[in-house]
Amino acid sequence: MELENETIYKQMSFLREIDNLKSVIRKSPLIDQSRKENSAEHSWHLAMYAMVLYESADETVNLDRVIKMLLIHDIVEIDAGDFPIHESHNPNEQEELEQKAAKRIFGLLPLEQEKEFRQLWEEFEASESHDARFAKSLDRFQPLIHNIETNGGTWSEADVSKEQVIKRYGPTIAAGSKSLWKYASNLVNKHFQRSV
Amino acid sequence: MELENETIYKQMSFLREIDNLKSVIRKSPLIDQSRKENSAEHSWHLAMYAMVLYESADETVNLDRVIKMLLIHDIVEIDAGDFPIHESHNPNEQEELEQKAAKRIFGLLPLEQEKEFRQLWEEFEASESHDARFAKSLDRFQPLIHNIETNGGTWSEADVSKEQVIKRYGPTIAAGSKSLWKYASNLVNKHFQRSV
Repeated sequence: MELENETIYKQMSFLREIDNLKSVIRKSPLIDQSRKENSAEHSWHLAMYAMVLYESADETVNLDRVIKMLLIHDIVEIDAGDFPIHESHNPNEQEELEQKAAKRIFGLLPLEQEKEFRQLWEEFEASESHDARFAKSLDRFQPLIHNIETNGGTWSEADVSKEQVIKRYGPTIAAGSKSLWKYASNLVNKHFQRSV
Repeated sequence: MELENETIYKQMSFLREIDNLKSVIRKSPLIDQSRKENSAEHSWHLAMYAMVLYESADETVNLDRVIKMLLIHDIVEIDAGDFPIHESHNPNEQEELEQKAAKRIFGLLPLEQEKEFRQLWEEFEASESHDARFAKSLDRFQPLIHNIETNGGTWSEADVSKEQVIKRYGPTIAAGSKSLWKYASNLVNKHFQRSV
């Protein structure tokens, strides 16, 4: 096979495989409550969050890298599944499953792209760079908005208290954007006042 | 309301509204044929197509702009609906509906962002710039792949001939990337050989 052909065959094999992310179902509801969100449309929504809200980041971020990071951040779930925030699980087991998934799925790509995508995903997971901290912040912020809009969403389902919400969402959101956490914590306060 | 607050309230109103793109159902099937694709996950998939395939573009493209264009290109469908390629419709009526939708939905954003998003969408629709031509090419290429993978997909449903496929997909795909059209037309030939 010619080199040019080999490249496109590998790329297309990856693009076919990731169609499966549309069938990974998250705990979060759509705002209209018609069904649960899947991880592919969630990734699209987060990329839109980045495009609209990047000026709310506390640190200087490269929007284009944040968008790419969010587009690929959940691809490992095709093999590893989603690990919901309000369920306990073994972080070592999760990491092992996700690393194995990253190896298989990004491994479908030509070598240079495999490296690029893998590094971007590892950077997101490590949550140390400005870009990754802001991307993680949005990944925690968007489901909070959906829970507020659906009268509690996964919080009602899992019987989560206001204190648990603040503890599970606050540090990650605030690490990327203090103004988004100010906006979000205000909504959380109002939500739990209404619910009491 | 403080200016800072007004900005985030407008931005969040837009981000809540576009959740509805997850409920716009296209004609194209998922590759596993479990259901039809929605326009939000389709937009995610196209952004991934751009990220993986941008070196196949014939002209020099700015990948970051192509990704943004693809992320927003279908948002008008929230009001205007999807216009399937194999059904006849009035292009003037479609344009009028989409312009009205763009005005309402992008109009939820703060003025500067409204302008930015609107211009990007208009550029995509006009299909004249390098970036727009490549984005349009991918938007035509991805559903073709899904039809091939699902034994004909919308082609079987709408009884579309090989000649019609070549006419309806070829010029748009080839205008952005001759190598993607070479790859696609090869698959089309094989598909219709099998189907005869």
